[in-house]
Amino acid sequence: MKPVDLRSDTVTRPTDGMRKAIAEAEVGDDVYGEDPTVNALEAEVAALFGHEAALFVPSGTMANQLALSVLLGPGDELLCDADAHVVTYEGGAAAAIGGVSTRTVVGTSPGALDVDAWLAQVRRPGYHALPTSAVAVENTHNRGGGSVLPYDDLVRLRAGAPALHCDGARIWNASVASGVTFAEYGLLFDTLSVCLSKGLGAPVGSLVISTAERIERARRRRQQLGGGMRQAGVLAAAGRYALAHHVERLADDHARASRLAAALAEFGVVDPAGVWTNLVLLTVPDPHAFVRAAAEQGVLVGVFGPRTVRVMTHLDVDDDGLERAITVLSAVLRG
Amino acid sequence: MKPVDLRSDTVTRPTDGMRKAIAEAEVGDDVYGEDPTVNALEAEVAALFGHEAALFVPSGTMANQLALSVLLGPGDELLCDADAHVVTYEGGAAAAIGGVSTRTVVGTSPGALDVDAWLAQVRRPGYHALPTSAVAVENTHNRGGGSVLPYDDLVRLRAGAPALHCDGARIWNASVASGVTFAEYGLLFDTLSVCLSKGLGAPVGSLVISTAERIERARRRRQQLGGGMRQAGVLAAAGRYALAHHVERLADDHARASRLAAALAEFGVVDPAGVWTNLVLLTVPDPHAFVRAAAEQGVLVGVFGPRTVRVMTHLDVDDDGLERAITVLSAVLRG
Amino acid sequence: MKPVDLRSDTVTRPTDGMRKAIAEAEVGDDVYGEDPTVNALEAEVAALFGHEAALFVPSGTMANQLALSVLLGPGDELLCDADAHVVTYEGGAAAAIGGVSTRTVVGTSPGALDVDAWLAQVRRPGYHALPTSAVAVENTHNRGGGSVLPYDDLVRLRAGAPALHCDGARIWNASVASGVTFAEYGLLFDTLSVCLSKGLGAPVGSLVISTAERIERARRRRQQLGGGMRQAGVLAAAGRYALAHHVERLADDHARASRLAAALAEFGVVDPAGVWTNLVLLTVPDPHAFVRAAAEQGVLVGVFGPRTVRVMTHLDVDDDGLERAITVLSAVLRG
Amino acid sequence: MKPVDLRSDTVTRPTDGMRKAIAEAEVGDDVYGEDPTVNALEAEVAALFGHEAALFVPSGTMANQLALSVLLGPGDELLCDADAHVVTYEGGAAAAIGGVSTRTVVGTSPGALDVDAWLAQVRRPGYHALPTSAVAVENTHNRGGGSVLPYDDLVRLRAGAPALHCDGARIWNASVASGVTFAEYGLLFDTLSVCLSKGLGAPVGSLVISTAERIERARRRRQQLGGGMRQAGVLAAAGRYALAHHVERLADDHARASRLAAALAEFGVVDPAGVWTNLVLLTVPDPHAFVRAAAEQGVLVGVFGPRTVRVMTHLDVDDDGLERAITVLSAVLRG
Repeated sequence: MKPVDLRSDTVTRPTDGMRKAIAEAEVGDDVYGEDPTVNALEAEVAALFGHEAALFVPSGTMANQLALSVLLGPGDELLCDADAHVVTYEGGAAAAIGGVSTRTVVGTSPGALDVDAWLAQVRRPGYHALPTSAVAVENTHNRGGGSVLPYDDLVRLRAGAPALHCDGARIWNASVASGVTFAEYGLLFDTLSVCLSKGLGAPVGSLVISTAERIERARRRRQQLGGGMRQAGVLAAAGRYALAHHVERLADDHARASRLAAALAEFGVVDPAGVWTNLVLLTVPDPHAFVRAAAEQGVLVGVFGPRTVRVMTHLDVDDDGLERAITVLSAVLRG
Repeated sequence: MKPVDLRSDTVTRPTDGMRKAIAEAEVGDDVYGEDPTVNALEAEVAALFGHEAALFVPSGTMANQLALSVLLGPGDELLCDADAHVVTYEGGAAAAIGGVSTRTVVGTSPGALDVDAWLAQVRRPGYHALPTSAVAVENTHNRGGGSVLPYDDLVRLRAGAPALHCDGARIWNASVASGVTFAEYGLLFDTLSVCLSKGLGAPVGSLVISTAERIERARRRRQQLGGGMRQAGVLAAAGRYALAHHVERLADDHARASRLAAALAEFGVVDPAGVWTNLVLLTVPDPHAFVRAAAEQGVLVGVFGPRTVRVMTHLDVDDDGLERAITVLSAVLRG
Repeated sequence: MKPVDLRSDTVTRPTDGMRKAIAEAEVGDDVYGEDPTVNALEAEVAALFGHEAALFVPSGTMANQLALSVLLGPGDELLCDADAHVVTYEGGAAAAIGGVSTRTVVGTSPGALDVDAWLAQVRRPGYHALPTSAVAVENTHNRGGGSVLPYDDLVRLRAGAPALHCDGARIWNASVASGVTFAEYGLLFDTLSVCLSKGLGAPVGSLVISTAERIERARRRRQQLGGGMRQAGVLAAAGRYALAHHVERLADDHARASRLAAALAEFGVVDPAGVWTNLVLLTVPDPHAFVRAAAEQGVLVGVFGPRTVRVMTHLDVDDDGLERAITVLSAVLRG
Repeated sequence: MKPVDLRSDTVTRPTDGMRKAIAEAEVGDDVYGEDPTVNALEAEVAALFGHEAALFVPSGTMANQLALSVLLGPGDELLCDADAHVVTYEGGAAAAIGGVSTRTVVGTSPGALDVDAWLAQVRRPGYHALPTSAVAVENTHNRGGGSVLPYDDLVRLRAGAPALHCDGARIWNASVASGVTFAEYGLLFDTLSVCLSKGLGAPVGSLVISTAERIERARRRRQQLGGGMRQAGVLAAAGRYALAHHVERLADDHARASRLAAALAEFGVVDPAGVWTNLVLLTVPDPHAFVRAAAEQGVLVGVFGPRTVRVMTHLDVDDDGLERAITVLSAVLRG
């Protein structure tokens, strides 16, 4: 029996429909701007978020780094939270390849955005100190347990931020959970990154979204980072399919995550109220041992910190898989 | 009628067989190292060149930059030729993102490698000057007209270079044209990049090849550059198909390039002896006008310099296409 | 009448004795390692802090950046406080020229070091997230109001930090105020920077202090940053003079700062208990207006934030100057 | 007896007059722009070269790097010669800290500037290749044997270069040797660096010269590199003294270099016609052995390459010193 893989929503495999879309993709050389499927995807996604333009790239990290590179030059300051993906899971790229100086705010509690604390750290020009050039948020927030940032808080942050980027790798989940539309989110941000290969289930691909002028600069920067792909339509076709078929169904992933948290709550490892979307964080004494024990019984989850295990629902986990996971994780927790 | 597109061998579209391979690809999450098709491709390509390991990446630029990053740190010196892809077509990435200091040798004539001139520029440690840490060659050489570097010259350069990288985006063409095997080429270089989306006709993907230790570092650096892809097996499957079916047929591309050069020689725009592989450079007074005139008659070629037009044969140009191209380009040259 | 300049302790001019030392300095070419006065200064300062070696450089910023560069490579993470000089007053250099990724802790109150909060942010290797490679503190702390970090807290931080740097531009003041010796401070840190041109009154110069191996690497990096100076003994002589004559007298600066805070406390702009060393922060509604009004009456102080004015005592401000300052600032505060 | 030190013109020690100027220097805090001696020096030097502004920095390397940083951003291309100081003796700084991509021309013979070869390598925008953003020359040319670049060649290069920087560390020697005025040189270049601590004999300091706008940006960049110094007037005073007293006397250094070359010509190690200024290159089979043998007899010269020794005349070498050097070097050459 195949294991139930709840380590990440990145592990999804393309469905038959998606594979068909890939196989039939109309393609061209995207480095020349001639791949019709890529062009269509970029136009669709830009429109969805109410922005002028978008650019297809191989990964969420590249989408974030391109966004930062059009907002900030070497030595410019970015303010973000201390658990943000851009300073946690991108190999220090913002500094290493972009020269971006980061200052961070340590979050108080997941799902909350202490806007006053953030704004107190935004430095204005004119006091000798390096001014803050941009602020970045992540929505939903991975290390924050898939939390959705409150829209009103984002509006307030927007008002006080010199420029605002959203790492929206899982903004699909945020929208489905909160009811805030993509266009409403789009209004708030100067740049966004979105990812097609997480909850949406496409094999590869992210986009960076902004004004036409910024996207043009991002395109040149993409060449420098080695992100220019030729007949990328084979990937973009999967992305278009995912947008058409896999957005609304994220509600199922969320429901399953809640179901799992509710079932495991009795062990005191998770508060079901702390589940926002498709991600459940379990607090256990020895995550490595926990992960190994679950794996031996065919359920894959991930070590996420010295006391934390991450469990994510996604397209490839149905109700049967979820129940198997609940059974196995309960057994592991029991002893 | 569809135009005959001879601008680049990157414009090829996947064949039916390749599309089938893509659609049926077995995949996994390659960021976790679990994509079986990517793993198989990496193992195959490493073995082909007699190296320990290889890494699949989205582009030739990323493959080159990863190779440089494992050979050179910030402030280290790379010696290459002044027309090399790494200093010409990669947005200054070696310096911009890797901090690599480049010194270059201006080539004397395409297809030749003035080894003595190169070695005279390799600086040894101990004289206060920044020592040369690595040397890079390109084979076949794009701006050198698709020229094949003489094997004996490479052997001599190898002996005098502190480390040697090969930009082998078109090393397939070099091997087919010269009869030097991939393993023989592999022996010469500390790192190689090879590209599946040029002559081989895959939609997307390159590999960097080296020791296991270097490839491990390249993998971490790939994360930083945003080159980590999830179910990249959909691309790797196309690459494996291309390796199985599209290498030997490069000889046809070479023959067609020679045939085109021979046919246009009467106009004094090309010396057929200067055609090594699948690339023909035409010397014309006004390349932009020439390219426009040809395009109006359904033949696409590319401006390559203030007096130079580039014509490339590839998988999507058959004999009929070639004859049409010869007819049209001859007409343009005539009038 | 010359204004009383309390903007910064960097504005001091060399005394007659110091000028004599400069004029008579024995010098050589320090890029060749042959300046005897520089060599003597480096040896003295290294010994003072119980380290193997030190390197003389033009500024505190360069001293900090060299220290960071020997502890951290591009993409490595530094943890420091959100008000640290290295992320506030160095033009984003750590990221811009060193590629160092910074995460920061927002301080709770000046003079305190919430060690638990810091250690909670130190990331260990093994959880996919970028691990923390080094931690930096600043002592005394400029934006913290010249506060002295509690020694016991530093000891605890040391125990939990993978590597620890001290921006000790004003460590002279910390030692004089706390009684902790330079050698005791030196024990705690892998690298330190110290500055001769602030409280000590030398015109130019800082040192970075560490092991011989690290200082050797810092020396090569100094060349890259353009910090190699030839007959730098003319500056080092002033530094040696300052070390011999201007350390103990810092107690006078501290006493004067306390005297000024006590005198201005009645206006509710400062809590005298918040004065640790030679720095007084005043909270006023309009710092720019305050600074202008004081300047018109011959007392120079500095805008330090949207509500904050900084006043610093130093070698060039004697008791008369201080009383004049108190009189003028009181008058400004009154109306 | 003190050795005669002909290793470099950087080894000069300040004269009594210069020491007096240093000791009496009027100073202020140059980071605040308030050092009157620095300000006067910057104004004088800018005026001398007919430019708007200049900036005082600790070294020639920093002056060059600041100049490059205002002409070129990360990924921009600089064309220079393969022996230029900026790619040879600055630790790869242009790439490592500025991200500047360098392409180089290998010189044909010292003292010549093959303008056509240079211009052939200047890439114009519009052909996909990275365009050349700036060109740099070095005058006099250190590795070119102190050669003076022909003025007419510089004029031609100027006409074809998108922007032109001059590493003028020894432009004083060039002007004295060629009769071309500083203002005439200044006309040719967008940015210049000049050095006070080589032939001019000041202990420390260089300047970068350009428009007011560029110098303002260089000033901010100087902070990032750690080049901001406080009471730098103690150094600038030496520089002003050097400009007033040590420019014309460079002719003596040149005459002595010629005299030395003439005396050693009989050994076939140098062609006196190849001496332009204060630098003599000797071709010997074993430079390390040669340098050691001379040092044992009290004459210091430097290894400059696998077959080359460098001898430089300067302020601290008078006729007696020169004759001693000739005697010793002749003896060593004799065997």
